[in-house]
Amino acid sequence: MIAVLKHDASPERTEMLIEWLKKQGLGVHVSQGEYTTVLGLIGNTKNVDMDMLRSLDIVESVTRVTDPFKAVNRKFHPDDSVIPIGNAGLTLGGGSFGLIAGPCSVECCDQIVGVAQRVKLAGANMLRGGSFKPRTSPYDFQGLGGEGIRLLLEAKKATGLPIVTEIMDIRTLDLFEDVDVIQVGARNTQNFDLLKELGKTNKPILLKRGLAGTIKELLMSAEYIIASGNENVILCERGIRTYESTYTRNTLDLSAVPVLKELTHLPVVVDPSHATGRASLVGSMALAAVAAGADGLMIEVHNDPIHALSDGAQSLTPDAFDDLAKRIFKIREALV
Amino acid sequence: MIAVLKHDASPERTEMLIEWLKKQGLGVHVSQGEYTTVLGLIGNTKNVDMDMLRSLDIVESVTRVTDPFKAVNRKFHPDDSVIPIGNAGLTLGGGSFGLIAGPCSVECCDQIVGVAQRVKLAGANMLRGGSFKPRTSPYDFQGLGGEGIRLLLEAKKATGLPIVTEIMDIRTLDLFEDVDVIQVGARNTQNFDLLKELGKTNKPILLKRGLAGTIKELLMSAEYIIASGNENVILCERGIRTYESTYTRNTLDLSAVPVLKELTHLPVVVDPSHATGRASLVGSMALAAVAAGADGLMIEVHNDPIHALSDGAQSLTPDAFDDLAKRIFKIREALV
Amino acid sequence: MIAVLKHDASPERTEMLIEWLKKQGLGVHVSQGEYTTVLGLIGNTKNVDMDMLRSLDIVESVTRVTDPFKAVNRKFHPDDSVIPIGNAGLTLGGGSFGLIAGPCSVECCDQIVGVAQRVKLAGANMLRGGSFKPRTSPYDFQGLGGEGIRLLLEAKKATGLPIVTEIMDIRTLDLFEDVDVIQVGARNTQNFDLLKELGKTNKPILLKRGLAGTIKELLMSAEYIIASGNENVILCERGIRTYESTYTRNTLDLSAVPVLKELTHLPVVVDPSHATGRASLVGSMALAAVAAGADGLMIEVHNDPIHALSDGAQSLTPDAFDDLAKRIFKIREALV
Amino acid sequence: MIAVLKHDASPERTEMLIEWLKKQGLGVHVSQGEYTTVLGLIGNTKNVDMDMLRSLDIVESVTRVTDPFKAVNRKFHPDDSVIPIGNAGLTLGGGSFGLIAGPCSVECCDQIVGVAQRVKLAGANMLRGGSFKPRTSPYDFQGLGGEGIRLLLEAKKATGLPIVTEIMDIRTLDLFEDVDVIQVGARNTQNFDLLKELGKTNKPILLKRGLAGTIKELLMSAEYIIASGNENVILCERGIRTYESTYTRNTLDLSAVPVLKELTHLPVVVDPSHATGRASLVGSMALAAVAAGADGLMIEVHNDPIHALSDGAQSLTPDAFDDLAKRIFKIREALV
Repeated sequence: MIAVLKHDASPERTEMLIEWLKKQGLGVHVSQGEYTTVLGLIGNTKNVDMDMLRSLDIVESVTRVTDPFKAVNRKFHPDDSVIPIGNAGLTLGGGSFGLIAGPCSVECCDQIVGVAQRVKLAGANMLRGGSFKPRTSPYDFQGLGGEGIRLLLEAKKATGLPIVTEIMDIRTLDLFEDVDVIQVGARNTQNFDLLKELGKTNKPILLKRGLAGTIKELLMSAEYIIASGNENVILCERGIRTYESTYTRNTLDLSAVPVLKELTHLPVVVDPSHATGRASLVGSMALAAVAAGADGLMIEVHNDPIHALSDGAQSLTPDAFDDLAKRIFKIREALV
Repeated sequence: MIAVLKHDASPERTEMLIEWLKKQGLGVHVSQGEYTTVLGLIGNTKNVDMDMLRSLDIVESVTRVTDPFKAVNRKFHPDDSVIPIGNAGLTLGGGSFGLIAGPCSVECCDQIVGVAQRVKLAGANMLRGGSFKPRTSPYDFQGLGGEGIRLLLEAKKATGLPIVTEIMDIRTLDLFEDVDVIQVGARNTQNFDLLKELGKTNKPILLKRGLAGTIKELLMSAEYIIASGNENVILCERGIRTYESTYTRNTLDLSAVPVLKELTHLPVVVDPSHATGRASLVGSMALAAVAAGADGLMIEVHNDPIHALSDGAQSLTPDAFDDLAKRIFKIREALV
Repeated sequence: MIAVLKHDASPERTEMLIEWLKKQGLGVHVSQGEYTTVLGLIGNTKNVDMDMLRSLDIVESVTRVTDPFKAVNRKFHPDDSVIPIGNAGLTLGGGSFGLIAGPCSVECCDQIVGVAQRVKLAGANMLRGGSFKPRTSPYDFQGLGGEGIRLLLEAKKATGLPIVTEIMDIRTLDLFEDVDVIQVGARNTQNFDLLKELGKTNKPILLKRGLAGTIKELLMSAEYIIASGNENVILCERGIRTYESTYTRNTLDLSAVPVLKELTHLPVVVDPSHATGRASLVGSMALAAVAAGADGLMIEVHNDPIHALSDGAQSLTPDAFDDLAKRIFKIREALV
Repeated sequence: MIAVLKHDASPERTEMLIEWLKKQGLGVHVSQGEYTTVLGLIGNTKNVDMDMLRSLDIVESVTRVTDPFKAVNRKFHPDDSVIPIGNAGLTLGGGSFGLIAGPCSVECCDQIVGVAQRVKLAGANMLRGGSFKPRTSPYDFQGLGGEGIRLLLEAKKATGLPIVTEIMDIRTLDLFEDVDVIQVGARNTQNFDLLKELGKTNKPILLKRGLAGTIKELLMSAEYIIASGNENVILCERGIRTYESTYTRNTLDLSAVPVLKELTHLPVVVDPSHATGRASLVGSMALAAVAAGADGLMIEVHNDPIHALSDGAQSLTPDAFDDLAKRIFKIREALV
């Protein structure tokens, strides 16, 4: 850690600060510049409160030289993590691609089984579907809850596809016993108590980036899960909140894919459906995500009759997904 | 609700859409423009999924004419809400100003009682202190937990100040029995299950705006609490995430104060300490918040010896708070 | 245009407003809802000041139903624009791909000719190089100016590659006589007087999106150029300013590519070098841009000896560009 | 300047880098940590290209220890700048408050003279009015141009108020000969050629912060003007672009006021009218700006008959301004 002192820091206060830092067990390396004094702090700086240090009136800036994340850090684990999914030998990461598809919300048995069969035929290897739904309004449909999970399990039985569904409240964890991948949504990325509890399970956790979460925050949230004992974490880029919200719901940050692949060994999947909010954009963004190096995609597919009216929904029709899957596999091949 | 159709929407599909909307129990008022058809939807549009409607390929845009929030809406409750705090007759809102002060984290008994006595003398009427701390890193200090609440209660006993402290996990609710105001932090503003449970209590809830939360989302989260039965909600502006993060931690959005006062009857307090992250800015932002019409302030005050080195921390010293409180009351008077 | 009135708008004021609108030559279609009155405005609404209308105290919201952009609008020009570049039959758009490469700044003759020869061999069909450089600091290198353009023309002579370079001040327009494509940088996207003057030339204009420009603003700036008489506009996505600036300089908004392709007939190129600011990310973002449907790429390539130390610069080495170009063409083929 | 090397930087490359830095005339101070090597660069680092250095593959991060701005820096000029306005002894900064009021656009003689007389009576000491208007759309009213300036000068003659108006194109500079303060709008904050030319005049320049400009960029743009010879710069906060744009046009960043007052000796004024875009918010934001320590305010006042309908426009009526001015002066007194 490096602390740069202000140009007018008095020698007395500088001395007081150095003494205090040494008492915290740190080595302090003083470097006197023309205008500034720079302190290099050596040793276990993990417990030093950077904000507090920065706030001292003789301190100009504080920079952490080492990353705050350890367990997720590729520096210490150079090889890609490979996450086992379900019991039939499927994996994600390290070259294995995950194509996760299904409806936004589970609605009824026919719907979810029907969609599951169609997306499996197209090449999907996991089924998604929401049972507990985080809705901005208390008056909006909140999902089928436990009944939704029961329906997902029927679709799994019918197709063999492992299932991915979102948890919102740790008190419902028992209901997820047969779920293959537990999703943490963008509104819970920093629900630290939830992350700690999920860290005590051995389920793969699909962790979405926060609504306006930084890359570092996403990695630190993954660190919470791993530090609690569960190494099976999949990161998910799903668009970030920016000033541009007229034509897309969020701004899909595809540069996060290569950035994350550099910083961490964990696999990275991309959700173009939630990011854009418009089906006409899902295809190009899915292909772009693959070209950017994503380890998987999470795509909404729906067969509701009203959507017959439309090829413009956030959810693709099964036919549109069929077509897209073919193009996805072509891009995958071109990358080799 | 108003749906504008695309200029090339075919008459057949337009007819199909109108029929479908009528089946949802809505009145549909068709207005044919030179280039566009506009549908005015009348009746209970609350259950219409705007995103789905917008996603139809013949629909250009959908606009909700009525606000999605009801219980918090000033249109239906023109008078300011007045929130009772504690048992000694204190209130917040409707002209009553709340000056909440105290340390970021509760550390030990001497600290919290000492700070409580100082801020009370300066004019604070509530004591804040964190017991459960949401930290980005799992390796950072996570707060004293239940022990922290016990220490806050001792400070309350010593000074009579009602106490405000943050809840992170609904499973700890029992520990908050004697807490006067329960705070929901910025990372939990959209933890809807937590909000629902807090809506079943009768405690005042201080609800912070999300890290990058919109004003509408803040109101909808308040709506969750009230819809579950608890009308005692205090809103808190605490800075939003923007591209400008070099000189301040967040951007304090003071225009949210008059905007919220127009939209809702709930009281609005401002937290300049977390917003700016630097004590040298807390004073001017506190005064600006008061001038903007805030119903209260939440200010960090700390007496840790290392801060003797500094007048630059996010936390003010008790002396600096003393001085600021005087200036706050002067601005309050000038507003009358 | 649709104006929604406030629920408590008095009949008198509503009548006054309707009269006033009719005097502006508009047809007014009144639709009375349960809670609200909606006015549909028909006719030439282009001259109605939406902000002023919205600001009236009886008006809740105003929505423009028709797009404010005309000349760039795909609705009125369904076919892709094909922009002629230089005199040798090269085009961009409508299926023709533009691969623009070269150094950030022109430094000397050997450099620019050397880079031009290398990128041409790799498959680039245009040469970029900055002569007038917009620098945040007045103390930073401001470019070689007219001398830089002279050197670019030598590189053009040596290789036959058309050249692209940035204009900052309209008073230097004469120097651009032999330049093939004039670039307008992100800081000048809304320098409307510059746009108007460029609209009087017949040169292709490569118009970059503003630092934090919306898609609509980019289109309106293109509209300025076309409205002044020059239809040869190429749009360029180059990253937008967001809260995430630790790991990338800007956030490359690739969803802007399919959005722009829907809204306008103009070609869209992507600059992954400026967007990310780091060479290790340029490759994946270039491939992603192609997969997203971009009509071209603009990539920095440099051969400065210090970069021998590095494969990490924003600029690729000629060797790295060679390799990337091959992968770009493979993705292009996979898309067919 | 401090460069932190990557943990796996080889000794050979580290040596090469150090040699190269020394050749640039810098002193290099090497500090070997447990995991990292840190280079402290001493001497004239102004010419070192930070981006290039950061881009080297053995470099982890580069931090500039000294501010990039010099002439505007309070460190080197501790006293407030006091800017002379007009020829009648008026000043702004260093305790002198500037209350600038007037219409958004100059429309006709009666209007501008009428408004000028009203705002002067209320206590304004400068008159604003737009003659050249930067409009997003080429089809919107572009201002009266030179005729507008002529009308402003008539209003000045009638009232004695110095006038403030915006320049968009340096080729029109001659028209500003009798203008007292030349405004640079948010779209031209980084139009560096314009800034350089204005730096050759001796007029006070009111420099607005860019649409999404950082505080540092604003200071660097002021640096351009001063470096060209003109020290009379007034900074103006006018709201920044954020994700929150439903209830306000921009987010007024009032914390920029105390931040700028710490960093620079230049005066800072606030424009609450453009920031919020709604008159009902202008009053509270104006008072908040004063409480935050602003040296002045710029407020839109208009007397157009259609606004009789309204107290909700971005522009205040003369009566509303009258009332606000009284409250502004009361807050100013309470601050002493």
